[in-house]
Amino acid sequence: MNNHAEIRLSGSGGQGLLLAGVILAEAAIMDDKIAIQTQSYGPEARGGASKAEVIIANDVIDFPKVTSPDLVLALTQVASDKYSKSVNDKGILVIDDEVVLDDKYEYGKIVKVPIINTAVEKVGKSIVANIVAIGVIVELTKLVSRESVEKAVLARVPKGTEDLNKKALAEGYLLAQSVI
Amino acid sequence: MNNHAEIRLSGSGGQGLLLAGVILAEAAIMDDKIAIQTQSYGPEARGGASKAEVIIANDVIDFPKVTSPDLVLALTQVASDKYSKSVNDKGILVIDDEVVLDDKYEYGKIVKVPIINTAVEKVGKSIVANIVAIGVIVELTKLVSRESVEKAVLARVPKGTEDLNKKALAEGYLLAQSVI
Repeated sequence: MNNHAEIRLSGSGGQGLLLAGVILAEAAIMDDKIAIQTQSYGPEARGGASKAEVIIANDVIDFPKVTSPDLVLALTQVASDKYSKSVNDKGILVIDDEVVLDDKYEYGKIVKVPIINTAVEKVGKSIVANIVAIGVIVELTKLVSRESVEKAVLARVPKGTEDLNKKALAEGYLLAQSVI
Repeated sequence: MNNHAEIRLSGSGGQGLLLAGVILAEAAIMDDKIAIQTQSYGPEARGGASKAEVIIANDVIDFPKVTSPDLVLALTQVASDKYSKSVNDKGILVIDDEVVLDDKYEYGKIVKVPIINTAVEKVGKSIVANIVAIGVIVELTKLVSRESVEKAVLARVPKGTEDLNKKALAEGYLLAQSVI
């Protein structure tokens, strides 16, 4: 996954997935990689599932569209129903622990962790679920360094919320470590 | 331009061009169009010019990359030097009035208006230059309706800045009207 990774982040609108994609892309560039962040808006975007995508690579990215994601994040049931099956068979599917998967399907590696609950219970704000998810993804994949992702998070979150977001990232790392 | 428009927004980091792209895309979807918002991060992103791109279409968008922009916005000299020549020959180049163009080159239609100065002098905040620019683009192109772009702006800007941003949009419309 480390030379060219396609990442699809899905959930509901308002969960900050666009911001999560932007942060991953900005962390990648700090690590001297290249990245493309994309969000598609269309009929498929209506109906409760929101997605944002990032490609992180060491080299030229010829086709900027995510076609066979190496990692899919699904924070809600609706998003999972729509996008979980798109993960490629060597990829990683990261789902919130409230999500129920269709067990008749092969998903690659499944990582089921309480992302939203961790944001609420351990960090104190459901709105940082996106940052907890970034922590999970970075720790699982090592696509970008912790140092860069922390800088990228702090550059994008509102002033005054730095400590909250650092805590969210750290809790994300811990969640990933609990399943590695 | 109205069936399939490729838009490239350029300036410096911190001018909120990603947000401008997101707002245009979100306004398009409210108008029942489809849109793709993309930001590339790579070696070309280093060195002071930042860009964000949007494609707005009535129909399927096959290739999500902006290849021949129908509209290029350049808010700074560095961004203009890098991206102004990419506008297609039937397109519109919108530049801040501080930008100096290479006059040996044909750019399509040039719209040179005081975007940054309007943000500072008429709205009172340089940070809303991106929203003034959206007003200019929407009024020039009619790609999205005023109603939708206003909703999209209000959905994305920080609480408490709604009036400031509505004023910024309105000033953008006026700037465009002054050159149409």
